[in-house]
Amino acid sequence: MKIGLIGLGRMGGNIARRLMKAGHQVVVYDRSAEAVEKLAGEGAIPASSLDDVRGKLDTPAIWWVMLPAGGPTEDTIAAIGEGAKAGDIVIDGGNTFYKDDIRRAKGLADKGVHYVDVGTSGGVWGLERGYCMMIGGDDDTVTMLDPIFDALAPGLGTIERTPGRIAGQADPRAEKGYIHAGPAGAGHFVKMIHNGIEYGLMQAYAEGFDILKSKNSDKLPEDERFDLNMTDIAEVWRRGSVISSWLLDLTAIALAKDGELNGFSGSVADSGEGQWTIDAAMEEKVPANVLTASLFARYRSRIEHTYGDKVLSAMRFGFGGHVEMPQ
Amino acid sequence: MKIGLIGLGRMGGNIARRLMKAGHQVVVYDRSAEAVEKLAGEGAIPASSLDDVRGKLDTPAIWWVMLPAGGPTEDTIAAIGEGAKAGDIVIDGGNTFYKDDIRRAKGLADKGVHYVDVGTSGGVWGLERGYCMMIGGDDDTVTMLDPIFDALAPGLGTIERTPGRIAGQADPRAEKGYIHAGPAGAGHFVKMIHNGIEYGLMQAYAEGFDILKSKNSDKLPEDERFDLNMTDIAEVWRRGSVISSWLLDLTAIALAKDGELNGFSGSVADSGEGQWTIDAAMEEKVPANVLTASLFARYRSRIEHTYGDKVLSAMRFGFGGHVEMPQ
Amino acid sequence: MKIGLIGLGRMGGNIARRLMKAGHQVVVYDRSAEAVEKLAGEGAIPASSLDDVRGKLDTPAIWWVMLPAGGPTEDTIAAIGEGAKAGDIVIDGGNTFYKDDIRRAKGLADKGVHYVDVGTSGGVWGLERGYCMMIGGDDDTVTMLDPIFDALAPGLGTIERTPGRIAGQADPRAEKGYIHAGPAGAGHFVKMIHNGIEYGLMQAYAEGFDILKSKNSDKLPEDERFDLNMTDIAEVWRRGSVISSWLLDLTAIALAKDGELNGFSGSVADSGEGQWTIDAAMEEKVPANVLTASLFARYRSRIEHTYGDKVLSAMRFGFGGHVEMPQ
Amino acid sequence: MKIGLIGLGRMGGNIARRLMKAGHQVVVYDRSAEAVEKLAGEGAIPASSLDDVRGKLDTPAIWWVMLPAGGPTEDTIAAIGEGAKAGDIVIDGGNTFYKDDIRRAKGLADKGVHYVDVGTSGGVWGLERGYCMMIGGDDDTVTMLDPIFDALAPGLGTIERTPGRIAGQADPRAEKGYIHAGPAGAGHFVKMIHNGIEYGLMQAYAEGFDILKSKNSDKLPEDERFDLNMTDIAEVWRRGSVISSWLLDLTAIALAKDGELNGFSGSVADSGEGQWTIDAAMEEKVPANVLTASLFARYRSRIEHTYGDKVLSAMRFGFGGHVEMPQ
Repeated sequence: MKIGLIGLGRMGGNIARRLMKAGHQVVVYDRSAEAVEKLAGEGAIPASSLDDVRGKLDTPAIWWVMLPAGGPTEDTIAAIGEGAKAGDIVIDGGNTFYKDDIRRAKGLADKGVHYVDVGTSGGVWGLERGYCMMIGGDDDTVTMLDPIFDALAPGLGTIERTPGRIAGQADPRAEKGYIHAGPAGAGHFVKMIHNGIEYGLMQAYAEGFDILKSKNSDKLPEDERFDLNMTDIAEVWRRGSVISSWLLDLTAIALAKDGELNGFSGSVADSGEGQWTIDAAMEEKVPANVLTASLFARYRSRIEHTYGDKVLSAMRFGFGGHVEMPQ
Repeated sequence: MKIGLIGLGRMGGNIARRLMKAGHQVVVYDRSAEAVEKLAGEGAIPASSLDDVRGKLDTPAIWWVMLPAGGPTEDTIAAIGEGAKAGDIVIDGGNTFYKDDIRRAKGLADKGVHYVDVGTSGGVWGLERGYCMMIGGDDDTVTMLDPIFDALAPGLGTIERTPGRIAGQADPRAEKGYIHAGPAGAGHFVKMIHNGIEYGLMQAYAEGFDILKSKNSDKLPEDERFDLNMTDIAEVWRRGSVISSWLLDLTAIALAKDGELNGFSGSVADSGEGQWTIDAAMEEKVPANVLTASLFARYRSRIEHTYGDKVLSAMRFGFGGHVEMPQ
Repeated sequence: MKIGLIGLGRMGGNIARRLMKAGHQVVVYDRSAEAVEKLAGEGAIPASSLDDVRGKLDTPAIWWVMLPAGGPTEDTIAAIGEGAKAGDIVIDGGNTFYKDDIRRAKGLADKGVHYVDVGTSGGVWGLERGYCMMIGGDDDTVTMLDPIFDALAPGLGTIERTPGRIAGQADPRAEKGYIHAGPAGAGHFVKMIHNGIEYGLMQAYAEGFDILKSKNSDKLPEDERFDLNMTDIAEVWRRGSVISSWLLDLTAIALAKDGELNGFSGSVADSGEGQWTIDAAMEEKVPANVLTASLFARYRSRIEHTYGDKVLSAMRFGFGGHVEMPQ
Repeated sequence: MKIGLIGLGRMGGNIARRLMKAGHQVVVYDRSAEAVEKLAGEGAIPASSLDDVRGKLDTPAIWWVMLPAGGPTEDTIAAIGEGAKAGDIVIDGGNTFYKDDIRRAKGLADKGVHYVDVGTSGGVWGLERGYCMMIGGDDDTVTMLDPIFDALAPGLGTIERTPGRIAGQADPRAEKGYIHAGPAGAGHFVKMIHNGIEYGLMQAYAEGFDILKSKNSDKLPEDERFDLNMTDIAEVWRRGSVISSWLLDLTAIALAKDGELNGFSGSVADSGEGQWTIDAAMEEKVPANVLTASLFARYRSRIEHTYGDKVLSAMRFGFGGHVEMPQ
């Protein structure tokens, strides 16, 4: 198939490459002419503007927008929509908030344009491993785009089949690494929860390694200390333990380089998905203590002392005359 | 009554004063001769050693130990116990772990010595307001000591009676500010939970004020900011609101001095009771998310970056090539 | 002053009464003719419709809307706004989301109508104790309404002054129980955080009493049990302890009736403010573990078993062949 | 090597089998004669008592105790220790608290007996996949036992090597699935944290699936609902996503059978390790909100309504006259 790819950053560029490798034609555009040129050198059809992309696409035109969520994606899709004809398809492969998808899909549907949202996991490893995709949109459109998704997905590969999964009964796409989750918005909703879980998993490992590492600390009495090796512990848990995972593999890689992780300061960013997951939990009245604590741990990692900490100190001084502890 | 008071720190000294004010005789001893002298100047009977205290007490001897929990209390009570005679009474008024009370009470009971544990709340304000006391020990001993507790407690005072509390049916001591909670250990157990709750209440206010204060922050877009006055907010909540409390009164005092709380760094200490409360919750299999989060917020306030934070950063670099955020 | 009061439920009715007691004239309207009649019998001016209210008010007209947040308030304020003239004042005394205030204030300002939001705490006790109020709106309007707020507020009363609060320097309204927090929305924002804190305080007590009560449980080995009296413990903490508060007073009242609280099932509702507080924390990137855990505990109290619990059981069966524990 | 294996439950029996498969001789004993007989039928040397085991072992005697933690393990090791000679080795392969290991190792060392603690992960899958082991004990003993651990461990297998792990520099045992973590106790300490992390990971998935599932709920307004397929979502996340893991594989297996998980009630057990992990965190003053929330979620899953929930309801009735919500 022929597809226009807007946004050639870390993710977009590799998606173009993986599509071309599968024989698809990709018209590429990015604000950076350099990025366009680079992909053109690898076989993509270069374009110099959205209009230029449009001119080089077939009918119906298929667009894959791979830009930062919020303004850049919003504006680009609006611009594409303005010139779109009935039957055209706009795919948002970024990290859009699912309610924005629902709104956009409605707007475009009025013109007969199809909107598809694709939550994409796999990060910088996707080019090699394939992308895990959660897709929202109408049935016909998602079915029509199958060759695209099939090319980007990991495929069955070497991952063992789930016992009890019965071929003829279940959707065969899931095993290949992509699902049609529901109407517009459903793809990004599932991807959002995926990221919420990701925060929780990461924080669980983080706390565990923290307790392990602090067991070596000279703040403990000498006879209560161990001298545990973080690098070897991460490695051994990869092998036959209940907590083996891809995130643990990544941790083991980092710890193999430096068990102290001295290259990292510990100031941790968060993206919208973590917060939106908590919003969804609250809308549904579902308790989510672990996912929330994970998000808050990241906020806290970026603050030296909260105002709240000072309020605590002020109260303690008030009732007990306590002076503060040195950090 | 005549009572020996061991430990003349902030708490012990004021307990001696409040007892003397009520007409009791207090034999005082402290490692610091200066502290002993000072109290002697206010009417106490000075002593230069535990043996000297013993010699100046009646039969049975009544001891009130008011020392830091752990070693100092443990050693002193052991020393008193060694020379004690059947019928003597040892009161631990400090912050002892309740299982230590149970153990000590058993040991002293073998010699016919009575052990009483008193959890004492009221901090530096107790001299003036009276001490709220939670008492563990055998019935006869606690009853016998009533004049002591009655003198230390706030009494009915100006605090309104609880509607529905029926004088003849309920224990009248509770209204005066002290209870006999149960056998040895029960006093400190109830006090321990009191402190656990205290952590939770404090953290609830701390988080609330943090969200208020951060609403003024120039990190927010200008049209999302307010310019809220912490001092006035604390004050107004003292007056008719559902969240009025003594801890809020203390917060209002601190904020009346400086709404920015610049005098405090925000490095917050914790004592044993917070941790023991969580231990008790776990022994009883009772979920206690708020009390635990309160304790952990204090730990976190004393750490610049956790090792766990670095593990998070290392993973994020691993799957997304993400670099860290500046604090 | 003359004021139109729309909504005569538990809160609205008492607000009318307290205003009349202070000599203000109150034009009352409610969907329920019975409620209108009752207030009329106590001296209010009855009205049969919003238009009727308008006809009975002075110029400028002052409206106090005291209805459930969301639809009822939204629709009523829209209707009032439609017929309003420049200079009129609309007060929302309910539990509106502060961003709705900001939006409404903008809309009404176009017509020269002033919008004031008042967060009101005090519950069913307000008639007697007075209402603690947090007010948002423009300076002139809030100043003009001072006689209204002064009448509703508790006033200085018997609550001790905060040491260090300097009369001439600080806003004297705070001591009387109301503050002008900022522009439209600021009043409900502060009230929202007030409720968030309230959830946290309540949950701290709840967990503490749970650990106390479970210490009596026959699920514990006999030698680890106490026989603690919840009623007396709540009472004694009211008297001189660090954790005394109005919420504790209420707890003591309930426990004086029945220490087992058998009249309550433990299915706990939550209103919008708790959730919005967490939203605000996330917008500001402020960690708020305690306030969030408090909200989630309420969600959890209304669910028998979560789907998440079943997922846990399914995993445990998967890796260990574990069968489930009886509840 | 020749080894005595005490305890032929789910774990012990399979450990015996895996050892025999590697050519070791295993003397087996269990309270259940039937279990002994069964293993004997598969090639093990049956024994009818601890003394009988001892008689059939070489010098030094090597024991592997695989019994429930607490009483059974404690008593058995005490009995073995009594008859042990200098040079003998006692291995505890169960889920013992690491401080018990330290105490036991000291006691046995007085007699020249070596104590080794082995934390074992892998559950019912270990026979096939091999066991991931974390080992504590003195260097010489652990080295001497290498053939045993090598036989039980998964070995390099098909799991990819960690990039950056340099063969000659790092301990080669970690890659084969076992580590010598430190002196006695260190093995079970690392295993304990492993289980703490396991709780956190499991709860992260549980909350995520709960939010997904509740998005289908008819408690939401119809236009806010999706119709998400839990089975396919679990499957797709196994393939190329950031949150793929063995626990997710197990979840996918369970969901392939029944997306509703109707076979599970959601009453979830917890073992000692979760609690001890929090104890360790508190001893080290390390915040661990996620691991604690995971543990508490399990407690909560086994309680219909907490007493704390009732306290909340009682307060709400007190300040607002609120009646309870139906579940």
